[in-house]
Amino acid sequence: MDRKQDISRDLLSEVKSLIDNNKILELRELLEEYHIIDIFDIMEYLEEDMKVKLFEVLPIDMSASILEECDVEFFKTILGKIDIEHRKNILELMSLDDMADILSQLEEDEREGVMELLSQEDADDVKELLIYEEESAGGIMTTGYIEVNKDMTAKDAIEHMRENAKEAETIYYIYVVDNQERLVGVISLRELITARDSNIVEDLMSENIISVYVDEDREEAVRLVSKYNLVAIPVIDRQKRLKGIITVDDIIDVMEEEATEDMYKFAGSSEHEVELIEKINPTPKEQIFSSVRARITWLIITLIGGLISTAIISNLDIIMNPTYAPLIFFIPVVIGMGGNIGTQSSALTVMTLYNKDLDYKNVLKEGVVGFITGILCSVIIAIAAFIFIKDIGIVLAVSLSLFINMIVGAMIGAFMPALLKRLDVDPSIISAPLISTILDITGVTVYFIITSLVLSKIV
Amino acid sequence: MDRKQDISRDLLSEVKSLIDNNKILELRELLEEYHIIDIFDIMEYLEEDMKVKLFEVLPIDMSASILEECDVEFFKTILGKIDIEHRKNILELMSLDDMADILSQLEEDEREGVMELLSQEDADDVKELLIYEEESAGGIMTTGYIEVNKDMTAKDAIEHMRENAKEAETIYYIYVVDNQERLVGVISLRELITARDSNIVEDLMSENIISVYVDEDREEAVRLVSKYNLVAIPVIDRQKRLKGIITVDDIIDVMEEEATEDMYKFAGSSEHEVELIEKINPTPKEQIFSSVRARITWLIITLIGGLISTAIISNLDIIMNPTYAPLIFFIPVVIGMGGNIGTQSSALTVMTLYNKDLDYKNVLKEGVVGFITGILCSVIIAIAAFIFIKDIGIVLAVSLSLFINMIVGAMIGAFMPALLKRLDVDPSIISAPLISTILDITGVTVYFIITSLVLSKIV
Repeated sequence: MDRKQDISRDLLSEVKSLIDNNKILELRELLEEYHIIDIFDIMEYLEEDMKVKLFEVLPIDMSASILEECDVEFFKTILGKIDIEHRKNILELMSLDDMADILSQLEEDEREGVMELLSQEDADDVKELLIYEEESAGGIMTTGYIEVNKDMTAKDAIEHMRENAKEAETIYYIYVVDNQERLVGVISLRELITARDSNIVEDLMSENIISVYVDEDREEAVRLVSKYNLVAIPVIDRQKRLKGIITVDDIIDVMEEEATEDMYKFAGSSEHEVELIEKINPTPKEQIFSSVRARITWLIITLIGGLISTAIISNLDIIMNPTYAPLIFFIPVVIGMGGNIGTQSSALTVMTLYNKDLDYKNVLKEGVVGFITGILCSVIIAIAAFIFIKDIGIVLAVSLSLFINMIVGAMIGAFMPALLKRLDVDPSIISAPLISTILDITGVTVYFIITSLVLSKIV
Repeated sequence: MDRKQDISRDLLSEVKSLIDNNKILELRELLEEYHIIDIFDIMEYLEEDMKVKLFEVLPIDMSASILEECDVEFFKTILGKIDIEHRKNILELMSLDDMADILSQLEEDEREGVMELLSQEDADDVKELLIYEEESAGGIMTTGYIEVNKDMTAKDAIEHMRENAKEAETIYYIYVVDNQERLVGVISLRELITARDSNIVEDLMSENIISVYVDEDREEAVRLVSKYNLVAIPVIDRQKRLKGIITVDDIIDVMEEEATEDMYKFAGSSEHEVELIEKINPTPKEQIFSSVRARITWLIITLIGGLISTAIISNLDIIMNPTYAPLIFFIPVVIGMGGNIGTQSSALTVMTLYNKDLDYKNVLKEGVVGFITGILCSVIIAIAAFIFIKDIGIVLAVSLSLFINMIVGAMIGAFMPALLKRLDVDPSIISAPLISTILDITGVTVYFIITSLVLSKIV
């Protein structure tokens, strides 16, 4: 990471001085040596007029790549500053899925303005890409693929590939369609170049195609690419017509997004905080606003849950008996430990549910985990409680409650996500704060039932 | 997902009946139509002798792929059952990084037994791969790449590539080395096949190489592949000599593992639970044992934290004043809400720290988020408290404590990971149970300071 940042800092100061001294040719030569991503990295540190100047100096294919990576604000600023012919040429080289992503964030009239600059064919493709939901396979696919007809010879197919290679996002798989545009096979570049010229594509292709439907969840595409080690996956409609492909770099982007999202959800936040991380330079006001928005729902839900705990405690009168006042000291630890093991078991269950179904045997198994860890923890707390308060009744009540709470906590943590999945609700809405709050409620209930039972027997 | 499982079930019953009726040729034809991963999927449902029979029928390249995917138990069973010549031939086709992964899990003498069957060259490569740490770039690299000398012509390079394509894991990038075996450039297959025959590789190659050191963390490889949209990344030693490559499918595997690991860590568990999910059919005993092992450390740490809360409460005497008994009812909700917002802010901070450094301004910003959400929540609790207990002093004490706890919770949640990073400790050791426990301690302290202040003023 440090290595990376050092390169950028050197590049940044060099670029700045070249722009200041108006050394355009040297600047262009310098930029050509760098990866587009590194150039994009330094652009965020440049002031607007320098940014535009740098952009104008770039070779046109690099300019297009920059626009594929940038956010919508950058896109609007840059496009507004360069002349219309240059604009057209750059847009023509942009990958259509990235263009569709940006256009979907523009206002209607701004979008129209950009679309007018595209060729008819590109405009049609982009329009189609704009239809699909962001979370669907169609929402992340691109139309930059190479397709050949099954009746072509290998020689014709290679010829066709060479002609279209520039527009394609990947040339490593070539997709084979029949006369109705239905996907019937796939052939790797490796197979194609090692075939004889006269071979027919249909005889060379593999018919065993892993594909995804255009309206399916994009996570299905992630799952298949990951499972079958693919570099790209074709996207088809319900009539099996080839609509696009998803390349592995977009799969990786989705994986990163989803992993971050899962983490936030588990912490009791939402995708609004994810948007925040993706933004390049959010203002403090934006950051605070989106954090509040992302968190407030769960905070209010857990607050209400907390008030239920309050109501339960206030209804139990053993607490009011001064002899048993020391029981109060142990409220946070006894209910907290149930929440802690519940958090652990719910995380395991949510993650396992991604890969397989779980029956209620899992809940039982978690109960055993709670039992074993519970024995250990209740022995520790018994010793501590005995040192604090030399009352055997209280020691027994506290350690038994902790023990039962840990079993209950582990089981509820495992039960809740499995129940949600059975009800067809996404189990990943389970969050650590939610689990703690639920287990605060069961925790105080268990605590007071156990203490009442134990102490009434002893007294 | 359902679609996938249906295919496997049909395939399974078909395979079973073909094996039962000893229809070997039909079985082989059937298997050839399927993807190796689907065949591997059904194998786990077959009994051992059927498994071996199926394996023997498979074409040899598919057998090798199965061994690349399988776990160490399967590897040992299968290899033990097939004759030595067949064994040799299959091992020769296996990808060396996968072989090294499996061999690293075998006993010394078992490993030696397998190594003896390898060609000298392969055995040397595997021995080298076995040296690297599992978590390093070297630990996930493969030696199945194509390298050419910078002085070759394009024609020679293509010839060389065709000869070695079978052993290579990817042919989409060809790596260029100088006479000292140092990596000096990279050329894509696309560029190579569109070049003139007589072009020299050195003139065609790109010198702007993104690479990773063999002893670096494998997460650095993930970061670079993801950032620069690569299909493979070369791995070099500190003398810049090319040692191997990491392909994108292995990057995806690492990403999945790390995302799961992050989630477990945040839930207060450890990699022992990850191992569990990866195992194909763990016994309930294995499951329970590894869960207990993974969780017990954090449970004991949080238990001790909980006892600190107990000690603090027991030292404050306002709690013993029967007039203020209702304060007890609000302990869980007042301290719990600090934990909830702390969990949210620590997750955001841990995730953000992956991508950039954070200064302490972030802690301040979280304080503002705690302030805003705190106002809302304290108004709600004030109303609820007033309905429960019509004592203005208690209402004020409870809602003010909640308000301050939420600010403190948000700030501590953001401060802890940033502090750890500054101390060069991995911030991802922060877990939800840890944060809750810390905030229980600060929570009871704040609660009793505030209530003492407020009530002493009023009384």
